[in-house]
Amino acid sequence: MGFSAADAVIPACAVIGIAFALWQWFLVAKVKVSAYAPAGNGVHGRPVFRTEDEDGEDARMGGGGGGESDDEEDGGDGPAAVARCAEIQNAISVGANSFLFTQYKYLAAFTVIFAVVIFLFLGSVHRFSTASQPCQYTKGKTCKPALANAVFTTIAFLLGAVTSVVSGFLGMRIATFANARTTLEARRGIGAAFATAFRSGAVMGFLLSSLGLLVLYVAIKLFGLYYHDDWEGLYESITGYGLGGSSMALFGRVGGGIYTKAADVGADLVGKVERNIPEDDPRNPAVIADNVGDNVGDIAGMGSDLFGSYAESTCAALFVASISSFGADHDFAAVCYPLLISSAGLVVCLVTTLFATDFFKVKTVRGVAPALKLQLVISTALMTVAALVVTFAALPAKFTMFDFGEQKQVKNWHVFFCVAIGLWAGLAIGFITEYFTSNAYSPVRDVADSCRTGAATNVIFGLALGYKSVIVPVLAIAVSIYVSFTLASIYGIAIAALGMLSTVATGLAIDAYGPISDNAGGIAEMAGMSRRIRQRTDALDAAGNTTAAIGKGFAIGSAALVSLALFGAFVSRAGVTVINVLSPKVFAGMLAGGMLPYWFSAMTMKSVGSAALKMVEEVRRQFSTIPGLMEGRATPDYASCVRISTDASLREMMPPGALVLLAPLVVGTFFGVHALAGLLAGALVSGVQVAISASNSGGAWDNAKKYIEAGASEHAKSLGPKGSEAHKAAVIGDTIGDPLKDTSGPSLNILIKLMAVESLVFAPFFAAHGGLIIN
Amino acid sequence: MGFSAADAVIPACAVIGIAFALWQWFLVAKVKVSAYAPAGNGVHGRPVFRTEDEDGEDARMGGGGGGESDDEEDGGDGPAAVARCAEIQNAISVGANSFLFTQYKYLAAFTVIFAVVIFLFLGSVHRFSTASQPCQYTKGKTCKPALANAVFTTIAFLLGAVTSVVSGFLGMRIATFANARTTLEARRGIGAAFATAFRSGAVMGFLLSSLGLLVLYVAIKLFGLYYHDDWEGLYESITGYGLGGSSMALFGRVGGGIYTKAADVGADLVGKVERNIPEDDPRNPAVIADNVGDNVGDIAGMGSDLFGSYAESTCAALFVASISSFGADHDFAAVCYPLLISSAGLVVCLVTTLFATDFFKVKTVRGVAPALKLQLVISTALMTVAALVVTFAALPAKFTMFDFGEQKQVKNWHVFFCVAIGLWAGLAIGFITEYFTSNAYSPVRDVADSCRTGAATNVIFGLALGYKSVIVPVLAIAVSIYVSFTLASIYGIAIAALGMLSTVATGLAIDAYGPISDNAGGIAEMAGMSRRIRQRTDALDAAGNTTAAIGKGFAIGSAALVSLALFGAFVSRAGVTVINVLSPKVFAGMLAGGMLPYWFSAMTMKSVGSAALKMVEEVRRQFSTIPGLMEGRATPDYASCVRISTDASLREMMPPGALVLLAPLVVGTFFGVHALAGLLAGALVSGVQVAISASNSGGAWDNAKKYIEAGASEHAKSLGPKGSEAHKAAVIGDTIGDPLKDTSGPSLNILIKLMAVESLVFAPFFAAHGGLIIN
Repeated sequence: MGFSAADAVIPACAVIGIAFALWQWFLVAKVKVSAYAPAGNGVHGRPVFRTEDEDGEDARMGGGGGGESDDEEDGGDGPAAVARCAEIQNAISVGANSFLFTQYKYLAAFTVIFAVVIFLFLGSVHRFSTASQPCQYTKGKTCKPALANAVFTTIAFLLGAVTSVVSGFLGMRIATFANARTTLEARRGIGAAFATAFRSGAVMGFLLSSLGLLVLYVAIKLFGLYYHDDWEGLYESITGYGLGGSSMALFGRVGGGIYTKAADVGADLVGKVERNIPEDDPRNPAVIADNVGDNVGDIAGMGSDLFGSYAESTCAALFVASISSFGADHDFAAVCYPLLISSAGLVVCLVTTLFATDFFKVKTVRGVAPALKLQLVISTALMTVAALVVTFAALPAKFTMFDFGEQKQVKNWHVFFCVAIGLWAGLAIGFITEYFTSNAYSPVRDVADSCRTGAATNVIFGLALGYKSVIVPVLAIAVSIYVSFTLASIYGIAIAALGMLSTVATGLAIDAYGPISDNAGGIAEMAGMSRRIRQRTDALDAAGNTTAAIGKGFAIGSAALVSLALFGAFVSRAGVTVINVLSPKVFAGMLAGGMLPYWFSAMTMKSVGSAALKMVEEVRRQFSTIPGLMEGRATPDYASCVRISTDASLREMMPPGALVLLAPLVVGTFFGVHALAGLLAGALVSGVQVAISASNSGGAWDNAKKYIEAGASEHAKSLGPKGSEAHKAAVIGDTIGDPLKDTSGPSLNILIKLMAVESLVFAPFFAAHGGLIIN
Repeated sequence: MGFSAADAVIPACAVIGIAFALWQWFLVAKVKVSAYAPAGNGVHGRPVFRTEDEDGEDARMGGGGGGESDDEEDGGDGPAAVARCAEIQNAISVGANSFLFTQYKYLAAFTVIFAVVIFLFLGSVHRFSTASQPCQYTKGKTCKPALANAVFTTIAFLLGAVTSVVSGFLGMRIATFANARTTLEARRGIGAAFATAFRSGAVMGFLLSSLGLLVLYVAIKLFGLYYHDDWEGLYESITGYGLGGSSMALFGRVGGGIYTKAADVGADLVGKVERNIPEDDPRNPAVIADNVGDNVGDIAGMGSDLFGSYAESTCAALFVASISSFGADHDFAAVCYPLLISSAGLVVCLVTTLFATDFFKVKTVRGVAPALKLQLVISTALMTVAALVVTFAALPAKFTMFDFGEQKQVKNWHVFFCVAIGLWAGLAIGFITEYFTSNAYSPVRDVADSCRTGAATNVIFGLALGYKSVIVPVLAIAVSIYVSFTLASIYGIAIAALGMLSTVATGLAIDAYGPISDNAGGIAEMAGMSRRIRQRTDALDAAGNTTAAIGKGFAIGSAALVSLALFGAFVSRAGVTVINVLSPKVFAGMLAGGMLPYWFSAMTMKSVGSAALKMVEEVRRQFSTIPGLMEGRATPDYASCVRISTDASLREMMPPGALVLLAPLVVGTFFGVHALAGLLAGALVSGVQVAISASNSGGAWDNAKKYIEAGASEHAKSLGPKGSEAHKAAVIGDTIGDPLKDTSGPSLNILIKLMAVESLVFAPFFAAHGGLIIN
């Protein structure tokens, strides 16, 4: 494959991906939400329901009677329901838009400041000199000045930040566009509803991964106009793209996570526990904030997170390739191998998507979960073949890879093995996560059973389950690291990470499907749709819960690999060849690094707790001061709850964000490269465990509660029904799990990645001026 | 200080320590428990109370009326009460004895098997050859055969195991001897009761540390008769002592921890939550098991744990010294510096103890906690001076220390700084732990306040508190490591650990004081002593709760340092000079090692949970099937609850024990020294964080509950009283914290230490034959 082939394949695949996403969007848009009623008049902050003055025969409050709601049959699914769905959708969409735009104002300020910091730090490496400099790796050649690298790194950072924000925003838009459509399609059957939700997820998955690929490719080409054959400088600067993507992801994940869980916990504590009304009951003032949270946290946050992983692993691989024989030989197709793998991934995921939406249509409730799991298997299998083709087409049979000061002999099939082990380790992590968090298996059932003796045993068993669930994923990651590291050094790890992420479009589709279905269920409940519809949306939601856990497993697994690849790239770029555990700086750094995930989690957990307490007070206040609210005769003030979540999220995302961004800068500047390397290694080793256990404990509690509620077996029935002592204990566990699984746990992915990519970007500065206190 | 001086000082100090312990025991024994009634007839398994047929006017069931018990004034504290105290004490003592002897049978079997393993593995290093071999470190000299080292290491292992078991057993004996005496002394006033409890703690502290020192010293002398000037072999073999101590500690901590928490959680879940009867109410069938648990878990387990740390850090320091210039120069006083520091520590602690019992007597309830805290400050200050004297007397002004293949120049005052930083870091960890777990400060009060909105927010806030409490201790440990490692390489770390442990006699006295007071309170409640007495024992107990948290902070802080010192010694002994994080084996090992504390915690948490469920069923069964039990007319079957705890503990301690003992053997044998080094580093970095956060979350929940119960402020009153919704939420948190703070958290200390000392002992084998799969 020559120079022109890569240049044709990459943009072509990206464009195909974008076109496919738009086509899916078009299919979703065919479902009309506002055909029968004027939509868009439920403005954020004013009542979204027109209450009783129209369509009086309709059982709008179908879910209103607490435990007895199940006895009410068939609310209205006609034009009035459609109008209500449109209004609710609009309220959610307005709330999500408003939150994201407020958040973006903060992010814009942060981005500008941080861009200046990047420029100043990197510019200072050679004291802002405009003179060319000898290259670091290619001896005897002259490279561009450090000042130019500072400028282009800053530009790449801005590009990454903007792409990340746009990806998250588009994801949120399609999700809030699709939720009511999924509800309405549920009238036609489970298959139609599933297709709508899944297609919407696919829109997000394909837009995000195609956009990420395209922007990166274009940036390389444009930067190349200046850098010409100075590939060291070119790919050093490109790493800014990963930093930009990941720093936006940090705030997206943390801010979105606090938003969604403050609303969720607050709504549950008063609604479910004190007032005994169902989830998503329209009488609960926090219900709109809760639904908005799903979109800004689970969709926009998750999108930014995986985009960050994708961008970072590509940047790490590109950088290492540029200082290896690919770079020396100026073999563009070989250097672009990571982009080619991602391009192939887009095509593979496209075909895979058709398996769910066209080749085998979902027809029954039972078919939903297997269809989603099949997506993972198909994409992994196809991608293995595609990777084989790409590897042999793009890579020379033999080459050398930079290996901490030496050049390691690598064969092209070694690299294929790296892709494959990443891919299959991802699948293994997905399946083991499912085993520990789905209530089809014994671990979650044991947790549910422990609710017999109350909340305390439930929590003890749930924590133990989370700890236990760490074993297999960590061993899978450790084996992947060992194999890929041994085969192709740090490049191998970056490629393994990319392998795990090569099917990210499908992964994101499955992941985004979850919150969309969750919202669809909420809208059905709030709009008072019939029990039949709600059962269908509940079935979609239940499958989404498990896939959410799988998605989190993928996210953390890939984050661990990405982070190690970035770590290796950082060390290489800082010119270090050995990080010796048996040195005071490294070991002290490791210990301190291992503490950071705990510090970070303490902040985010407490933020959710405090914000939830405020939410509880507000919801209680509304129930006690708004006459007729509990009886469904008055409308709650949704806007004030939305405001509480927004304010809490924006205020509380700052300290953890500052911790993550400042820790590497402070340690690198004052204690030098070795202490920083220790810090990163410690944070990675400790953070992976905390993240996996937190996510899985939370997922297990959630599904243990759902298991008791569903009462689908004799055992489950003996624990239930809703409102029993065991169920109350299960609700407490679920509430504790909320911040663990949706705020602190997934945010840790970003902690470990972002600290590593930041170190990589600032490596020249640390190498030149780091270690002011100890060196 | 010449050869003879060290030989005089060490045994003399050890003997003084033992004599002091015996004197304290004599003082405690002066309190007569059985003067007025035949003691010893409440046999384990038969009813311990004679119920109503005597002394009928006595308010024996003083605590029987649930929440109303506080209204009953002044039960009988006369001869009948003394008789009942004697009976209860006897029942606890019999239960504890019986458990420990059963446990020792298992431990004996384990010890024999493991001794054989040690002999075979180490003997195989040179294929059981009896020929002398060239020394590893002293070039050109001849050392004893590996077979001799195998024999002596095995003997040292057995000595360590026996000393550990004897220490734990003696601690349990004095604790069960002192508990009722403390109750009875409370009749004379808070000061007398405090003195009794504290003296009993001192007995344990001094016996254990003197015995540890003496046995080690005698072993060195006896082994020296064979080894003569082969100090490499001599101090290599001595490391078996640390392994013996620590492997017994593992089972003591894990088995004892499961025992005590199964009983405690089970008793609370039915007694406090379902039946609404107070803690330690004699109607609760699990109450004797709960009190037995305090003695076998918190006393025997803690004693073995700290004995293990002490033995291990001494062995690590001795080994490193023997391969440094001290060894080459055959400077016995200098090599014995660790023993001299411990000797000085005994004298310092002796003086410190007199401050609490003789110089300043505790007179009021408020004086208890400050008196205990003062002990820490006084011992630390005095020890700093003593260390200065010992350092300049025992060490030459300049010498060299083995530093991973090189010899590092060290000055004697460097070593003094290592002792001092360990000492003061220990104090800092103690105080920060108090801040996070005492209800005198805002963190615990915030947790208590979060109980307003239920158990879920309580748990979220408590977990966040635990995570946050990790920051300062880990930074203190990291700084200690950096400073001592930089000053004197691995020897510096071992010495810093010894510095932290040099005041172990006082630390143990304070620590053992807690469970003794706890038992004293339980006995007062069960014997129906007057409210006045119970208030006094409660005050002692409350102070003990905080000191227990401080003790755990010490234990984990010293464990981290000890473990790193052992790690360094292991690497040195395996002949490795660099452990490079940037190598596949090391990094994969680190990641897997970081997972081990989670795996281990999953096992122990689940063990406690399952055993507690069984206990709950048994207690419920007794309440529903024994007529008149709830009314206090019948006696529960205490023995069956004791049996459940015993069986669960013995059965469930095996898998976590096997994990800890097999992990280093398997990794070292199959994957080699570098992978094992990574495993140890990962386990250390991750385990420290888990242990600290688990202990402190648990401690905070416990004290938040006590804060609400005590109702000592307007804020606390607004949350209480007992039985309020907030109090119920606090009880749930407390129950969740039980296994975290008393089973999994403290056991992790031993996990990280034991894996390291095991690696050290087996290092010659791994170096010779390790890495069967990958090398």
